[in-house]
Amino acid sequence: MTVEEKAAQLGSVSPSRGVADNAGEVDEGQELVEDGELNREVAEELLAEGIGHLTRIGGEGSLPPTQAASVTNEIQEYLAEETRLGIPAIPHEECLSGYMGPEGTTFPQGIGMASTWDPDLLAAVTDTIGDQLEAIGTAHALSPVLDVARDLRWGRVEETYGEDPYLVAEMATAYVDGLQGDSPADGISATLKHFVGHAVGAGGKNRSSVDLSRRTLREVHMFPFEAAIHEGNAESVMNAYHDIDGVPCAKDEWLLTDVLRGEWGFDGTVVSDYFSVDFLKEEHGVAATQQEAAVSAVEAGVDVELPNTDCYEYLAEAVRDGDLAEESLDESVRRVLRAKFEKGLFDDATVDVEAATDPYEDEAAVGLAREAARDSLVVLKNESDLLPLDEADSVAVVGPKADDKKGMLGDYAYAAHYPEEEYEFEADTPLAAIENRVDADVNYAQGCTATGNSTDKIGRAVEAAENADVALAFVGARSAVDFSDAEGVKAEQPMVPTSGEGCDVTDLGLPGVQNELVAQVEETDTPVVIVLVSGKPHAIPDIDAGADAVVQAWLPGEEAGNAVVDVVFEGHDSGGHLPISMPKSVGQLPVHYSRKPNTYSEDYVYDDAQPVYPFGHGLSYAEFEYSDLDLSDVDVDPSGTFSASVTVENTADRDGSDVVQLYVSAENPDLARPVQELVGFRRVELDAGESTEITFDLAASQLAYHDRNENLAVEAGDYELRVGHSSEEIAESARLSVTDTKQVPRTSRRYFTETSLDQA
Amino acid sequence: MTVEEKAAQLGSVSPSRGVADNAGEVDEGQELVEDGELNREVAEELLAEGIGHLTRIGGEGSLPPTQAASVTNEIQEYLAEETRLGIPAIPHEECLSGYMGPEGTTFPQGIGMASTWDPDLLAAVTDTIGDQLEAIGTAHALSPVLDVARDLRWGRVEETYGEDPYLVAEMATAYVDGLQGDSPADGISATLKHFVGHAVGAGGKNRSSVDLSRRTLREVHMFPFEAAIHEGNAESVMNAYHDIDGVPCAKDEWLLTDVLRGEWGFDGTVVSDYFSVDFLKEEHGVAATQQEAAVSAVEAGVDVELPNTDCYEYLAEAVRDGDLAEESLDESVRRVLRAKFEKGLFDDATVDVEAATDPYEDEAAVGLAREAARDSLVVLKNESDLLPLDEADSVAVVGPKADDKKGMLGDYAYAAHYPEEEYEFEADTPLAAIENRVDADVNYAQGCTATGNSTDKIGRAVEAAENADVALAFVGARSAVDFSDAEGVKAEQPMVPTSGEGCDVTDLGLPGVQNELVAQVEETDTPVVIVLVSGKPHAIPDIDAGADAVVQAWLPGEEAGNAVVDVVFEGHDSGGHLPISMPKSVGQLPVHYSRKPNTYSEDYVYDDAQPVYPFGHGLSYAEFEYSDLDLSDVDVDPSGTFSASVTVENTADRDGSDVVQLYVSAENPDLARPVQELVGFRRVELDAGESTEITFDLAASQLAYHDRNENLAVEAGDYELRVGHSSEEIAESARLSVTDTKQVPRTSRRYFTETSLDQA
Repeated sequence: MTVEEKAAQLGSVSPSRGVADNAGEVDEGQELVEDGELNREVAEELLAEGIGHLTRIGGEGSLPPTQAASVTNEIQEYLAEETRLGIPAIPHEECLSGYMGPEGTTFPQGIGMASTWDPDLLAAVTDTIGDQLEAIGTAHALSPVLDVARDLRWGRVEETYGEDPYLVAEMATAYVDGLQGDSPADGISATLKHFVGHAVGAGGKNRSSVDLSRRTLREVHMFPFEAAIHEGNAESVMNAYHDIDGVPCAKDEWLLTDVLRGEWGFDGTVVSDYFSVDFLKEEHGVAATQQEAAVSAVEAGVDVELPNTDCYEYLAEAVRDGDLAEESLDESVRRVLRAKFEKGLFDDATVDVEAATDPYEDEAAVGLAREAARDSLVVLKNESDLLPLDEADSVAVVGPKADDKKGMLGDYAYAAHYPEEEYEFEADTPLAAIENRVDADVNYAQGCTATGNSTDKIGRAVEAAENADVALAFVGARSAVDFSDAEGVKAEQPMVPTSGEGCDVTDLGLPGVQNELVAQVEETDTPVVIVLVSGKPHAIPDIDAGADAVVQAWLPGEEAGNAVVDVVFEGHDSGGHLPISMPKSVGQLPVHYSRKPNTYSEDYVYDDAQPVYPFGHGLSYAEFEYSDLDLSDVDVDPSGTFSASVTVENTADRDGSDVVQLYVSAENPDLARPVQELVGFRRVELDAGESTEITFDLAASQLAYHDRNENLAVEAGDYELRVGHSSEEIAESARLSVTDTKQVPRTSRRYFTETSLDQA
Repeated sequence: MTVEEKAAQLGSVSPSRGVADNAGEVDEGQELVEDGELNREVAEELLAEGIGHLTRIGGEGSLPPTQAASVTNEIQEYLAEETRLGIPAIPHEECLSGYMGPEGTTFPQGIGMASTWDPDLLAAVTDTIGDQLEAIGTAHALSPVLDVARDLRWGRVEETYGEDPYLVAEMATAYVDGLQGDSPADGISATLKHFVGHAVGAGGKNRSSVDLSRRTLREVHMFPFEAAIHEGNAESVMNAYHDIDGVPCAKDEWLLTDVLRGEWGFDGTVVSDYFSVDFLKEEHGVAATQQEAAVSAVEAGVDVELPNTDCYEYLAEAVRDGDLAEESLDESVRRVLRAKFEKGLFDDATVDVEAATDPYEDEAAVGLAREAARDSLVVLKNESDLLPLDEADSVAVVGPKADDKKGMLGDYAYAAHYPEEEYEFEADTPLAAIENRVDADVNYAQGCTATGNSTDKIGRAVEAAENADVALAFVGARSAVDFSDAEGVKAEQPMVPTSGEGCDVTDLGLPGVQNELVAQVEETDTPVVIVLVSGKPHAIPDIDAGADAVVQAWLPGEEAGNAVVDVVFEGHDSGGHLPISMPKSVGQLPVHYSRKPNTYSEDYVYDDAQPVYPFGHGLSYAEFEYSDLDLSDVDVDPSGTFSASVTVENTADRDGSDVVQLYVSAENPDLARPVQELVGFRRVELDAGESTEITFDLAASQLAYHDRNENLAVEAGDYELRVGHSSEEIAESARLSVTDTKQVPRTSRRYFTETSLDQA
């Protein structure tokens, strides 16, 4: 391979990429993909040396499945036939909550999937997503998000699996399992992102600097990545945008090579977050030229530049200039080629165009979207068992999220990014589903828009509430991009997004005048159910206190409407539990449950340190009791294993779903540790009166932490195991002793607790 | 020395300490100091083996100077005569803004002193404080505070010198210089606290966990300590309460021994923050017993436990048990004894009781307090040159801080901690000073209390404003402790402190209904001057926008009233500039000026990343222009020095004071760096029309930062030097190149820029 051919394997090309004129603009007729077909003249310019990846042919190109498949085939055939080496490309797509392209099924956003605490369900979802991607020729996906969310101002909280590294790790690994399938040739490569610490940028702002100590970095933010690599065999990792302590992740050799490959043995590809190599120059200022940026990224361990070969086009020149050793290229090229072999692209890179639509028309996908959506709802509050609303004769439906189709979706959902005129999205909103399915008078009054300032229509919503048996207020933040093209109108638009990438906020209340809407509706004598349709927890202690029931629905996807009716009206017991704590105010952050003991020792002048609803909280329509927590061993060898079993009984007269949570707390460790940490969980469905014994199997190595010398070690001493309904509602506890202190080699580390049921 | 005698040298005793009964209570008649006299029976119990320190005999004991001196003498004589070794004690006191005991002169709180940008003035202040302490037999002071404030929720922001490590370092070193005097025997030992990172606890809460990367830790939080040790020869350091990444500072050997003594060569004593050794057990849970806590603290490098020998009383037992090597004790004992020798305590530990009151009655101290107070005021806004108010015939004075004597003081000011009935504090409030000195009708209406919820009296304040030529609103947070003994009433008290130690807040607005008061006063046609009497910046963009003039007065101390009249009415040009940025909301934190470039690259949905008023901002009644920035060298050797000179002209027709600020910005460094950093400043007073040339002399080593291997190095490349009126208002810039990259040995590191004037 020539140096140019090698460099080409480390780049990518978007369908809108083309031959630029002198001003750097790509004119119509000069784009790689146009009108759903490959422009072979442009291809001659852009693909002559081959190409590593293809960037979002279907998604960015807005091509329906059949066209996405046929264009992808065209390009693969072009590469096979018209380039010297005939190396196929890796087509990649985005698919966080579903394939981000036309006709992809839209599942709940990440934070909602985490609320199910059901890794198997998530694996089923990503298996379905993988089928849809595979049908259009995609080989690689830029998901899942493993960022551990602790600053709720960040717009991307919705994409995460919440605040806890253990829960994030289990869910992300399930995502990878479902997407990648049983073998590399079988499935779609998953990309773990954003490596690492993207969730905790300064000021809660996207891409801003991260400042973390090493132990927190490793145990909170790296843990899910390490686990998903070791337990899920994730095939790709994406570097993050920000710097950690001044070192941008895209040029962090310690991170991308020493830790990722050296310590963890990762042998897949590292792909750059879009434009992050260029940002070394443009944003961080740590490179004077794009060539310098490219060299430092490759040397650090970024194998492939995405979305386009902007900086890596200088790699060949850098080698010729003596700025980069050709061997540095070789290693990355080897990884990319190995991925292509393993994905079977050398055997056949094309797909059956006729069959491309099959998985998109599969009714089972919609059924799964509905199952996931309803299990992702979290009932936070249910006074006097108001829910389910099976007896209401008249229902007032208010709030800007009641009848907003796009408002049910998160960022990275395709439909959310296009106005209805451009892409028609068929789905029942909560209002539509209620009108279709609920046998009651339904009176709808929006009350206000999502972010507008007008309170003029609140009165009509109040009136609707006054005349109903129950009022449902669908409120929350809108996610994904703004459709307005105008500059500077973001703040004035009635539908401005206040969640999603680049939509960070300084306030955690409901946007616009929604708080006022709810407060006024709550002043009526009618019972009020708040349904929060938002990708992040809001700080709304007052209207929460005034409501009779509160449901956190997150961004449930295309089946939002049916899911809400299933749970709120028809009594489906969602079993959802919070994967993230709900604070009292933005000024109270951080409020995650696993802080160190001293953060709880002083209150604020007007507030304590506790959230409104804690991590792990979620109500069932049934009632669950835990008893007889029993440990297999009281003294545990640091290399050994042990198990904890607990009896769970549904004491209600109806069936229900529950999430049993296992926490651990170290007593008098050498270093200050979190007050407790999640170390296992199990979702169970039990019939009325049924009970089961859950056994949690752990390795002592799961109790390890990084000692003063940054070695992972299990420390001798006492540990308390706790079984709880939430992080605050602990039902049972038991103590064990680890007999000796011992270092844990990463090769023998265990990440997850196995659970088994012995149903009585 | 016996092991017991050694251990005793590492402890301290409070005047209220005594012989405890079985329940651990000290009964009346059983305290060490009672009715201003030493209880020798109790002394026999507590001082038999000697003692390291004496804890706040005057301050905690509430003894006027004569009594404080005589009791201290009594104890020193007791130790000399009645203990086997006759070793004197080190009496210590608190004195952040003045001696924290009866009759001590109260200067501006730390944040106000920093606003003067006048190290010489601060040194004069602490020289005076030192005289007052020396007169009562004190040898050691638990000041200054070197914490770099970046989370404004923290109650102790008021105690700091602001957000910038360079400014903090220069001010703290000046504090040390003034207090310690020319030789150890001469002055009072200064204690650098809180080592390290106390200002950035999780959630802005006091004592909570700190999470920082190493480079930020070293360059932001450690820098002032390192500078004050090397440039100020500070004699003592106090560990902080919190843990950093799980390691509580009180047991952090890396911090207290490897860095502090090893890298920096510190040879003074490390004293514990009050109770922080005990907190290893009680708060962090990293010790099972007090003995274990004591052993780990001594081994880490905490020489002396304060305020009492709670844990260190187990040290002798620990040695006997084999848990602690006697040599570990010896090193700390040697340091304590050396301090006692150096302070001259072995020559004469007693003072002249008759002369004790002299420095307290010195009128010069009051004059200095007034000078410091008026120079600490920062004029943030002055539309249409409203200020100074030399022509108003009628003045409305409103707001809860207009006539609140204790409200002028910060935490650690003695008077602020006692109700007037217990300790009468004579001082003119702003209202009193205005009434005394301003030739205008003064109409006072409080409007509301500091934290009460009643808006009933706002109307009267509005009426007063309507009928006046100008309205002054004195608003802000109350600092220091609550006088109420009742439990749970903190939130209801009209005077609840919302600043000061343990008074952390989740909101940065004005407390109570003060915002409403100001907003209503601003709705009148009368021009409004807001005077902020608070130890921290408030986030008040709306009422700031509505005001005609805004003065940040901080907590000016006992001369607050006169200082306000001097500046606001009589046209004294304070020259004060902000040492900390003033944010738009609590959700926008952090907003310090020296963030990295990527934190500025995305705005929030409804806000940008900029503060309302930036670091370094401050208006003069005169007008200053900068020109002709000139560098001595364009190419600088990494071991070399260079200078930058700039002409400063007062172009106004009146005299004035200015602070000329020098910033540096690295271009394309290897690691992402702050967008700019303060690297020098000079306060100047210039007559109308006068100009001067300021020369800043720097060493290239001042451009160094910690490279990827944590080595301090100057990096080859371009740097821009900027001279500005504030961090945002840059007037001149020039570029230089460092020729090579070179490591900087800490022994040859320079910390401060020297400045000289060539007045034309």
